[in-house]
Amino acid sequence: MANITKKVSWSSRADDSAAAAAEEGTPLLLNGSEQRRFSRQELSRSQTREIPHNEKLLSLKYEGLDYDNIENQLFLEEERRMSPMSFRCLEISRWVVCGLIGFLTGLIACFIDIVVENLAGLKYQVIKKNIDNFTETGGLSISLILWGGFNAAVVMLGSILVAFFEPIAGGSGIPQIKCYLNGVKIPRVVRLKTLLVKVFGVICSVVGGLAVGKEGPMIHSGAVVAAGVSQGRSTSLKRDFKIFEYFRRDTEKRDFVSAGAAAGVSAAFGAPVGGVLFSLEEGASFWNQMLTWRIFFASMISTFTLNFFLSVYNKKTGDLSNPGLINFGRFESESVEYNFYEIPLFIVMGAIGGFLGALFNRLNYWLTIFRIRYIHRPCLQVMEAMLVAAVTATVSFTMIYFSNDCQPLAPENNEEYPLQLFCSDGEYNAMATAFFNTPERSVRSLFHNQPGSYNPLTLGLFTLTYFFLACWTYGLAVSAGVFIPSLLIGAAWGRLCGILLASFSPNVSLFADPGKYALIGAAAQLGGIVRMTLSLTVIMVEATGNVTYGLPIMLVLMTAKIVGDYVIEGLYDIHIKLQSVPFLHWEAPATSHWLTAREVMSSPVTCLNRLEKVGTIVDTLSNTSTNHNGFPVVVQALGNDEPGKLCGLILRSQLIVLLKHKVFVELARSRLTQRKLQLKDFRDAYPRFPPIQSIHVSQDERECMMDLTEFMNPTPYTVPQDTSLPRVFKLFRALGLRHLVVVDDENRVVGLVTRKDLARYHMGKHGLEELQLAQT
Amino acid sequence: MANITKKVSWSSRADDSAAAAAEEGTPLLLNGSEQRRFSRQELSRSQTREIPHNEKLLSLKYEGLDYDNIENQLFLEEERRMSPMSFRCLEISRWVVCGLIGFLTGLIACFIDIVVENLAGLKYQVIKKNIDNFTETGGLSISLILWGGFNAAVVMLGSILVAFFEPIAGGSGIPQIKCYLNGVKIPRVVRLKTLLVKVFGVICSVVGGLAVGKEGPMIHSGAVVAAGVSQGRSTSLKRDFKIFEYFRRDTEKRDFVSAGAAAGVSAAFGAPVGGVLFSLEEGASFWNQMLTWRIFFASMISTFTLNFFLSVYNKKTGDLSNPGLINFGRFESESVEYNFYEIPLFIVMGAIGGFLGALFNRLNYWLTIFRIRYIHRPCLQVMEAMLVAAVTATVSFTMIYFSNDCQPLAPENNEEYPLQLFCSDGEYNAMATAFFNTPERSVRSLFHNQPGSYNPLTLGLFTLTYFFLACWTYGLAVSAGVFIPSLLIGAAWGRLCGILLASFSPNVSLFADPGKYALIGAAAQLGGIVRMTLSLTVIMVEATGNVTYGLPIMLVLMTAKIVGDYVIEGLYDIHIKLQSVPFLHWEAPATSHWLTAREVMSSPVTCLNRLEKVGTIVDTLSNTSTNHNGFPVVVQALGNDEPGKLCGLILRSQLIVLLKHKVFVELARSRLTQRKLQLKDFRDAYPRFPPIQSIHVSQDERECMMDLTEFMNPTPYTVPQDTSLPRVFKLFRALGLRHLVVVDDENRVVGLVTRKDLARYHMGKHGLEELQLAQT
Repeated sequence: MANITKKVSWSSRADDSAAAAAEEGTPLLLNGSEQRRFSRQELSRSQTREIPHNEKLLSLKYEGLDYDNIENQLFLEEERRMSPMSFRCLEISRWVVCGLIGFLTGLIACFIDIVVENLAGLKYQVIKKNIDNFTETGGLSISLILWGGFNAAVVMLGSILVAFFEPIAGGSGIPQIKCYLNGVKIPRVVRLKTLLVKVFGVICSVVGGLAVGKEGPMIHSGAVVAAGVSQGRSTSLKRDFKIFEYFRRDTEKRDFVSAGAAAGVSAAFGAPVGGVLFSLEEGASFWNQMLTWRIFFASMISTFTLNFFLSVYNKKTGDLSNPGLINFGRFESESVEYNFYEIPLFIVMGAIGGFLGALFNRLNYWLTIFRIRYIHRPCLQVMEAMLVAAVTATVSFTMIYFSNDCQPLAPENNEEYPLQLFCSDGEYNAMATAFFNTPERSVRSLFHNQPGSYNPLTLGLFTLTYFFLACWTYGLAVSAGVFIPSLLIGAAWGRLCGILLASFSPNVSLFADPGKYALIGAAAQLGGIVRMTLSLTVIMVEATGNVTYGLPIMLVLMTAKIVGDYVIEGLYDIHIKLQSVPFLHWEAPATSHWLTAREVMSSPVTCLNRLEKVGTIVDTLSNTSTNHNGFPVVVQALGNDEPGKLCGLILRSQLIVLLKHKVFVELARSRLTQRKLQLKDFRDAYPRFPPIQSIHVSQDERECMMDLTEFMNPTPYTVPQDTSLPRVFKLFRALGLRHLVVVDDENRVVGLVTRKDLARYHMGKHGLEELQLAQT
Repeated sequence: MANITKKVSWSSRADDSAAAAAEEGTPLLLNGSEQRRFSRQELSRSQTREIPHNEKLLSLKYEGLDYDNIENQLFLEEERRMSPMSFRCLEISRWVVCGLIGFLTGLIACFIDIVVENLAGLKYQVIKKNIDNFTETGGLSISLILWGGFNAAVVMLGSILVAFFEPIAGGSGIPQIKCYLNGVKIPRVVRLKTLLVKVFGVICSVVGGLAVGKEGPMIHSGAVVAAGVSQGRSTSLKRDFKIFEYFRRDTEKRDFVSAGAAAGVSAAFGAPVGGVLFSLEEGASFWNQMLTWRIFFASMISTFTLNFFLSVYNKKTGDLSNPGLINFGRFESESVEYNFYEIPLFIVMGAIGGFLGALFNRLNYWLTIFRIRYIHRPCLQVMEAMLVAAVTATVSFTMIYFSNDCQPLAPENNEEYPLQLFCSDGEYNAMATAFFNTPERSVRSLFHNQPGSYNPLTLGLFTLTYFFLACWTYGLAVSAGVFIPSLLIGAAWGRLCGILLASFSPNVSLFADPGKYALIGAAAQLGGIVRMTLSLTVIMVEATGNVTYGLPIMLVLMTAKIVGDYVIEGLYDIHIKLQSVPFLHWEAPATSHWLTAREVMSSPVTCLNRLEKVGTIVDTLSNTSTNHNGFPVVVQALGNDEPGKLCGLILRSQLIVLLKHKVFVELARSRLTQRKLQLKDFRDAYPRFPPIQSIHVSQDERECMMDLTEFMNPTPYTVPQDTSLPRVFKLFRALGLRHLVVVDDENRVVGLVTRKDLARYHMGKHGLEELQLAQT
């Protein structure tokens, strides 16, 4: 079991996870009752059959982010000292940070775009020349080997980066950012190293000809940029610029990360509004108008930066027509208008997309389980990635080779690498426009090439092969996105639908242009796979540059979601579930009203006294079996064994800082000159608080006392024991809490509710189900 | 003073407000301390100079909506009885309701559009014929009288409807809906009568030629439709369809109202995404993904319905190119592209828009103060409206008459009513295209007429006159919106800027088309007046049908907001402030950390016992001096005079229902067969609970006891006394609370925080200011 579950981690290295947790200062929260529950489950599990995968588990590895300000005395003093002017300065610096985030994200997108375009261009040129040569002389197998070998080599590079250096940079990063915005701390997800691996990884994947896109990773990149810039320092590079110190806490950081994610979407698709909606859809538990506006600003700057630098690069300075990495090209409404009686057709296509998307997800789910079990060593992962690269090249080559779809080389044709192969002179191979190209270009060709550019067989075969290739590719240890492959698959079968419709009813002029069906198909397929709704509609509309298609795209996405959800969840949700992340959905399960805080909470809780012995604190923190992160502070009634009355809440991270600075009552008395601990000391330690093991406390010091009054949060949110689960959930989710204290009617602590206690319950096929907690 | 403040009410009838409050069952919440504070303020106020307006007051007239579910035993029992299937049915019926809301809102928009177009068409035809006649024969003053008289008559009709029948239907309704979404109950705002007056009122205003638009009122109309449909009954018509009974509470109703508002925006501007964002911007305290999705659905259906029926009406069935009431016409990006060095120009225009908007708001503010003081009798209001109508016609006529801007009647020219007047044959008067038209058409002409259609003087004069006309018009007792006039003013000066630019630099081809400057000017002016941001950008982008302009529009709106906010608030906010509505902003004032719940709360609080004497309850409810709405339920320690321990919270409305059904302990014992009170009884009484005066309780019954255990909310949210104001604010706002109980560390009730206690504090010019509470 351990062998299975440990490999599920996004970091993919089991031995790392403990070290990482220690390094991050994010030990596992595990209260007494959970511990018991866990052992009970261990027991019951070993009695039943071996569980083939662990989506029914909830990992204790992931910590929650603390979206609730710790309003202790230090904080309040600082806030009260600040003048209206300094609040205004703070607000301005927030805007500056957002502008910087947008600018840097746009630059990164620009860098990726230029490098990919150039390298891919070079590659296709060389191979085209080679193919053209060998087509005449025979011996095309050499071309195949060249193509496959080149792809495998490049992908190997990218895969080594990911598998050996930073596994968290694998994939599109969207599930990870979803989790982060949801309030889960994913180790190493917003580090500089991750960004570097991500950027170079995605270049390798795309140049290596995998069935991937470079768009998804932009969202992750934007988030990393945001987390870096907003802190005014780099922990990895050990540089502190002494700016933006106020923002060094989870509350502020998460706001900037959501701006970064939005800027990423914006740069990827040229969709600033879509970006804002994406961040909103994923993390609206913290949301206010000013924040929305700042996020919008970041998105805007991001797409503008990309657009501007690309226009300079393309020597058309100032021509702002490339707002995103992918550009669907304009759909002019005169040429491709739709009529309301086409809407049922679109809905049917949405249903097909939903079904195909669910199939994709189901296959990828099985594949992921297989990978978790058998392909967990980095070198195996690299080899798999190389294999996929070689197979992709081979399949593409074979398809192009055996395709008979020769199209005339029209003068207005804008194919960059028309492959003649066995076509007559003045003709080119249509299959090659789909396979022998970066996926972005292929999508554009499918949308905009004039009717008759592809024959149905080509499209059918392409859909079939690309579907399986893309499905196999997603989840490899490479940095790459699934957006573009999904769009490509959908565009192919969508165009096919259009062609078939036109051939069945040749007199209806509306069916003349299969391009709009390609668009609808693309939306349907993408919606069927990722199941995003509002944001995806807006992204599609912004990327096509035409609002007229907003309505059909919405309908299609809705249908795809409804049909798809009937079979299996969205791709990102599947992967989040397989990581056993304690992800909180928008609402508590509908049928959970019979559960109350009493049943849900962890209990008994380790409480600390307001004036506590250092030894007790060190022991509590060192206790690896009950790795708490938050401790209610209580006032014990004298000569009474009852639980104490709640008077505050203190976090592990705060205690660590206190211990490190030896803030003991006795020392304060003896050394009057000692500097008073300030908020700055906590901020300097954020976010990588040292583990308790690294702090030396002498035997004498263990006997000292620590006064927590000044540092604890004196007004933690509380609920009575009888509060129903939906009510607890609502409070927890709306305020982005990490710990919620459960008290009795005398205000005595009786339990603690954390993220895992809430994420455990979910609606299954047979009503409410409870996930098991596991120390993975 | 009373004379001034009482007239500020949106209902504009002082004698009404008490009756309305009683009728609505929404008496004033006023706790002891507030009462004291109030009297103190009364005192201090009378000592200072007379306050010319009451924006520094906070009305106690407005109740909060209850966005927090009352999770009492009845509710929990019902929820626990429900199967997963019934939750699914509930979810489906939510979708059905949203679909209906969208459909009906679209139909209403369609109705308004068709009626206005026909009536306005008829009017302009008659007057044109008349003018054409009299131009030849002389005696144009007769035309003027005809025009002015007709306008005044039609406006009188609309104004009488509003002033005498339903004052709340006046204006655009957007401030009212903003307040509703914010969580304030505005009396009569979502009634059927309001809807009818609104619809016919807006038709009269537009046909009457006022400087108004028909778009703003759609948002209000959508909200009323939503509030009606979702309740499955009409209280006004006394029809109960016995459906959707589950939705008969504030929590559900507000969700539907936000969908209705979004559907209204969507129908008005053909902007479904903009609609969703509008609802989000105004009411995001309650927000989750499924709700967003449903709101989106309603928006989509709404624009689609409008589009479809208009296409049928225009005999082009299925041509879906009229998604909204206003249609800016397509901006084709080839013809009107922009370059990045135009961006500074746009920003300057944004600043101008911000400044002009602030000027508009300042003037309108003074005007509103004047109206509050002197024009508060309905007949005066009607007369003012008629005067404005006549003046508008006269000014228009004069401008057209004295304008020398004759343009050739080109064959591609699509003016519907080209006025020749004193122009030569084959020419028409350009001033008339702006004045002699519905404002929607004028906006479109300014955007799209080819360069040279207007001369600069015409545009300058038009801007000047229309600016003052629009400013005078907003706030009249007619139902009308300010969106289109703002756009029109902006488009006029924007086009003027474009023409000037082109004349200064005749060689730059980019400046050739003034249409894009008209668009930018329109955005700037509208942004400067209403100060909406995200949603307005999206609305503009969706209405122009071109995403390319997203970026400049955003920048322009931002600039306009920054510049405008420096001078005065947005128009809607001004009017909300003048109504003294306890509106909660997104965050507590930045410098309010030194305030704690202790200072903010109302205290002492009237508490009830779990088992309370009926007489006490009746007396508490009847006490008009302390018109509480929520009562903490406490358990009193025996033989102890201390405050009791909190064990629940019960609302006035619940107590009223209990008293009405005589749920007394003694009666339950004697009459065993008596039906148990169910949730249905509370739902049937919602939302117009009878006043306490209408319930007869005999002297015997006064001695009975009432057991509140089953009906009270056993787990109200609480905060300790030391909680800082921002923290209280966050909890209150995030959960949409109405009452927040403040407890000491023994869980004893010490105070109650309500909306007014929080809305009282705001950032003024000199730091934190406290508004006064007034019984207006």
